Amino acid sequence: MKAYAEMTREELTEELTYLKKEYKKIQALGMSWNMSRGIPCQEQLDLSMGMMDVLQSDSDLTCEDGTDCRNYGQLAGIQEARELLGDMMENNPKDIIIYGNSSLNVMFDTVSRAWTHGVMGNTPWCRLPEVKFLCPVPGYDRHFAITEYFGISMIPVPMSETGPDMDMVERLVREDAAIKGIWCVPKYSNPLGISYSDETVRRFARLEPAAPDFRIFWDNAYGMHHLYDHKQDYLIEILAECKRAGNPDLVYKFASTSKITFPGSGIAALATSPNNMEDFLSHLRRQTIGHDKVNQLRHVRFFHNIHGMVEHMRKHADIIRPKFELVEETLERDLGGLHVGTWTKPLGGYFILFDSLPGCAKEIVALVKKAGMVMTPAGATWPLGKDPNDSNIRIAPTFPSLQELKTAMELFTLCVRMASAQKYLAEMPREA
Amino acid sequence: MKAYAEMTREELTEELTYLKKEYKKIQALGMSWNMSRGIPCQEQLDLSMGMMDVLQSDSDLTCEDGTDCRNYGQLAGIQEARELLGDMMENNPKDIIIYGNSSLNVMFDTVSRAWTHGVMGNTPWCRLPEVKFLCPVPGYDRHFAITEYFGISMIPVPMSETGPDMDMVERLVREDAAIKGIWCVPKYSNPLGISYSDETVRRFARLEPAAPDFRIFWDNAYGMHHLYDHKQDYLIEILAECKRAGNPDLVYKFASTSKITFPGSGIAALATSPNNMEDFLSHLRRQTIGHDKVNQLRHVRFFHNIHGMVEHMRKHADIIRPKFELVEETLERDLGGLHVGTWTKPLGGYFILFDSLPGCAKEIVALVKKAGMVMTPAGATWPLGKDPNDSNIRIAPTFPSLQELKTAMELFTLCVRMASAQKYLAEMPREA
Repeated sequence: MKAYAEMTREELTEELTYLKKEYKKIQALGMSWNMSRGIPCQEQLDLSMGMMDVLQSDSDLTCEDGTDCRNYGQLAGIQEARELLGDMMENNPKDIIIYGNSSLNVMFDTVSRAWTHGVMGNTPWCRLPEVKFLCPVPGYDRHFAITEYFGISMIPVPMSETGPDMDMVERLVREDAAIKGIWCVPKYSNPLGISYSDETVRRFARLEPAAPDFRIFWDNAYGMHHLYDHKQDYLIEILAECKRAGNPDLVYKFASTSKITFPGSGIAALATSPNNMEDFLSHLRRQTIGHDKVNQLRHVRFFHNIHGMVEHMRKHADIIRPKFELVEETLERDLGGLHVGTWTKPLGGYFILFDSLPGCAKEIVALVKKAGMVMTPAGATWPLGKDPNDSNIRIAPTFPSLQELKTAMELFTLCVRMASAQKYLAEMPREA
Repeated sequence: MKAYAEMTREELTEELTYLKKEYKKIQALGMSWNMSRGIPCQEQLDLSMGMMDVLQSDSDLTCEDGTDCRNYGQLAGIQEARELLGDMMENNPKDIIIYGNSSLNVMFDTVSRAWTHGVMGNTPWCRLPEVKFLCPVPGYDRHFAITEYFGISMIPVPMSETGPDMDMVERLVREDAAIKGIWCVPKYSNPLGISYSDETVRRFARLEPAAPDFRIFWDNAYGMHHLYDHKQDYLIEILAECKRAGNPDLVYKFASTSKITFPGSGIAALATSPNNMEDFLSHLRRQTIGHDKVNQLRHVRFFHNIHGMVEHMRKHADIIRPKFELVEETLERDLGGLHVGTWTKPLGGYFILFDSLPGCAKEIVALVKKAGMVMTPAGATWPLGKDPNDSNIRIAPTFPSLQELKTAMELFTLCVRMASAQKYLAEMPREA
């Protein structure tokens, strides 16, 4: 098919008429899809049902060190869980705290604590005239919502295929002591699906922030979430790299089993340096007596060890890989060569990012919505929901069935073409 | 036996010599007891092991409204759990939010949120020159630790058998807009074991605080925790009473199943007015996507309904009642008539409060410790750990076995007698 940019007014008008007819057909089906968030599908959830059987009424809920998981205590989590998540996060178990079911909550609490009490003895952020965070864009809306909630100024930093623009990151943190953090999803990033290059990680570990309480918020949400066995991104482990670079306290690393076992009932973890760990625990002990150890034990008994978890993740991949491939095939088939957008082809994670022609994303998301399909709001990938190009659209292919996804993606490409054709038409110079 | 106050120097010296000999005997046993916290014993934990069987790999983890408990969502908790805890807390399910495993964490977050963002649109507490809390004493050390953590000034309010001194509470909150809250454990209170009288609750509901963002922190931790079937305290439900008094937004009510099922893996809940609820949820949605719904469902399927929970609590009572009775009998047998202290005789909860002669509590706790028994530090029942009379000692009888408790209490009464005899001796006027 001819690229829209090369079409005449007549050709574009004809195309638009055709597209609108097709759109009406799909709309008439009265279907409804929810592709707004990165949510595992039921088949994926079923993979972890065995977790319900590993602890029974006649089970011994005692840890190897004698801790009764049913009772109070063990603020940093049970040793077995710290070991399992240590292997998962590539960190020493002693550098790990196991939390409840939500790593987002751990990140929120981390910012909140810095706000009220400061980081390792530094001035509480609430007492500073301004606090700023670097926000690689496109990024994760729930990260931005936390910093927005605390009134933290957010500075967008462009992402490329190797990660954030490190020249900009290095310069900004060196020059501005009001910059206290940066949000990172370093592997199979949300929403691009790219992983930070070796050079990017090395440069992160060697940042020279003006603020002593600057921290990298390293949300390694998709560390285990490969789509392929033999094509995988590899990420340099940041804590070790920071230690080697002489900056051991520079990073807070977050992870969880939310998209490994159950999103609602997983376990979350933090990995960080001994100094940061001591800082965290000194606050945490005011907040709670301990997190849910029975669920920690349940996870350990279910997976046994990291190999069990890796094998489990292969089953997830088998379920969602065809969905990612279907999205990419449909985009290629329906939009290839039209010059109406670009998209990422990640090797893992939960998202594909579609980049429309500038100014079309909102229109596309509105069009699909009117035909029954809810996507992440356009703009959500930017701080305050403001995508200056109005072009990012996050595609979350995991939740619908393959059959639903097929129609959904046909609807999506149709809407991309409609919005793009309209844009080209509108921008076409009136004939003299 | 003769009251110590009536003994001569010779009699007291003789008594002390005898006591020290007995003390050495127990010390020589080399035993160790932990009675520092209100911790259920293993037998109590075993009561809830059936909870491990109610969800199996072939179970349907779907709620009645179709919510898949395994996945994301349901910020306020699943409907079934809101109903069960609604019955437990005597509140409408719609006024309830179900949280994770720690009500202490919910209270911490509530203060933290007021600190960073304020209560219902009022000035964040961190922007105020001073914030004060009323702290009924003796009270719960972990409550005081939260307010201490935020630098909140704590004003002790004396407790009596009917609750806090309400004349003082009414006057202070009316006169001082810096007073933003009061910590209450209204039923089988920690550590006194008394319950607030009807008049006390009515007066709480009719407070006229100068601060619009003053809230009662009503920690009903022991609402279900009766020791007897036919001798029970009854507490007027505070939310309903506040509503009747025209002050619907005055109270945050907290509860959990920590001492009903598993302390480490229960579910916590908040009950409050629709306005407060809206305020809570608007913040909570930045903090997490939702709490552990599988565990909520597990609790619902285990208890079925409030009757199931009540029957379950009778089993707890059967286990711990003999322990409370043993403590009271030992205190009466060994200390009755000596005028060396007083103690409470609660009908529920987890604690007995022993009040020693002024200035003896620290010495008693130190003496028992040197013989292997860890008790709650003397002073812990007061803000900043400062008991002005040095007399409160919290006895937590649930964790040790009856046999252990027998020796532990004999050690305790021995130490009370030693410290008391020493005090009387020291204060005795030198003979002319």
